[in-house]
Amino acid sequence: MSEALKNSRALLFDVFGTLVDWRSSVSRSLEMFFSAPDTQMLVPNDTCWETLALDWRGRYQPSMESVRRGLREFVILDTLHRESLEATLAEHGIGPLNDSQLEQLTHVWHRLDAWPEVPDAMNTLRRQKVLAAVSNGNTQLLRNLSLYARLNWHVSLGAEPARAYKPQAEVYLQSAAMLTLEPSQCMMVAAHNDDLTAARALGFRTAYINRPTEYGSRQTHDRGPTSDWDIAVESLAEFVDYL
Amino acid sequence: MSEALKNSRALLFDVFGTLVDWRSSVSRSLEMFFSAPDTQMLVPNDTCWETLALDWRGRYQPSMESVRRGLREFVILDTLHRESLEATLAEHGIGPLNDSQLEQLTHVWHRLDAWPEVPDAMNTLRRQKVLAAVSNGNTQLLRNLSLYARLNWHVSLGAEPARAYKPQAEVYLQSAAMLTLEPSQCMMVAAHNDDLTAARALGFRTAYINRPTEYGSRQTHDRGPTSDWDIAVESLAEFVDYL
Repeated sequence: MSEALKNSRALLFDVFGTLVDWRSSVSRSLEMFFSAPDTQMLVPNDTCWETLALDWRGRYQPSMESVRRGLREFVILDTLHRESLEATLAEHGIGPLNDSQLEQLTHVWHRLDAWPEVPDAMNTLRRQKVLAAVSNGNTQLLRNLSLYARLNWHVSLGAEPARAYKPQAEVYLQSAAMLTLEPSQCMMVAAHNDDLTAARALGFRTAYINRPTEYGSRQTHDRGPTSDWDIAVESLAEFVDYL
Repeated sequence: MSEALKNSRALLFDVFGTLVDWRSSVSRSLEMFFSAPDTQMLVPNDTCWETLALDWRGRYQPSMESVRRGLREFVILDTLHRESLEATLAEHGIGPLNDSQLEQLTHVWHRLDAWPEVPDAMNTLRRQKVLAAVSNGNTQLLRNLSLYARLNWHVSLGAEPARAYKPQAEVYLQSAAMLTLEPSQCMMVAAHNDDLTAARALGFRTAYINRPTEYGSRQTHDRGPTSDWDIAVESLAEFVDYL
């Protein structure tokens, strides 16, 4: 086992993109939703579900930015997802949807498929390390995702308990504090170099899982490690081999 | 093992009184603080340290009540402890203390001794169950307490992440959600009947640990179980025997 992994008593997992394939799941959910008899006439015929999913996700970082800058009180990700959905639908000329339909669509982020190797790998890791989700998702979203996608972590921490959004330092530090661990005893596991950069600056160990198609075949960023992370692998199964 | 304990994947621990003897620890810390050359003249000669500790703690429930009733935004327990300290000192004619001294005294709640059997019992329980602190204490307080008193839980949840104070339902429900468990898969362990009453009403399993001297020899409440809790024992060591 690598020294960094041996010294890590907890593994802190980013979730969207790292453990689950949100792009395929959200695209499929949008397609299913707008194929129903009562919703299909609300959508232009040439709507591309993947583009819709990517545009919705495109509003993710900007939506958190007002909280990070203190321009807005902390609100949970479900709230931001709902606002971003409404803006995305308007942009694509889709609608009008009623409140219950908007709520239903917002909750597609609670049912995302894991990357194929993830559930088994987590069950193996769980026997040796404390596994924590450290995500910008809210607690109920993470709870539902854990049940749906069989993401068998011990506990979800992250944005909602810290009332801040990664890469704000509080999210990482509060998570370590809740585990009664020093940053150096925790390894952040993520498919995003900027998540690991923030964690390393605070003293956390780092592991990069490559997900070069998270955003589809034309993805331009996070197609490989951009720094000398403690571990860099192509899948969580490969990560397990480090044990 | 009892059926209720067998079905409990996590044990949720109340902390003050259940795992730690705050009364002796706070009394001793107050005595030590006011025995120093620069502080002993601030205190009336006839001050009883235990009375001072009990009076300070006497403001604990009332201080949380304004948050519970929504009259005040959630603030962490360190803040309430500090306010209660200032009121208690004024009532006893003690002071004036400067800001750094008040801060130092507020933090005596971060260094409380465990009841003697607790650390070993927790280390045994930890091998079979997920252990979580579900306390009204804030995250940093619980982190420091865990290190000081060797309270080896996996994670601290409770009031600060839920932004509510027990016995408000959110505290119990949010803790279960963070563990991806149903209330029926969690057992609340506490020395206080009202804590268990609130948890049971939400579907949690319950274990009562008797601490009849938590408030001293003249304690009138919580001198034994007042309901048919799933488990009722005289110590955490006795609880371990149920495994």
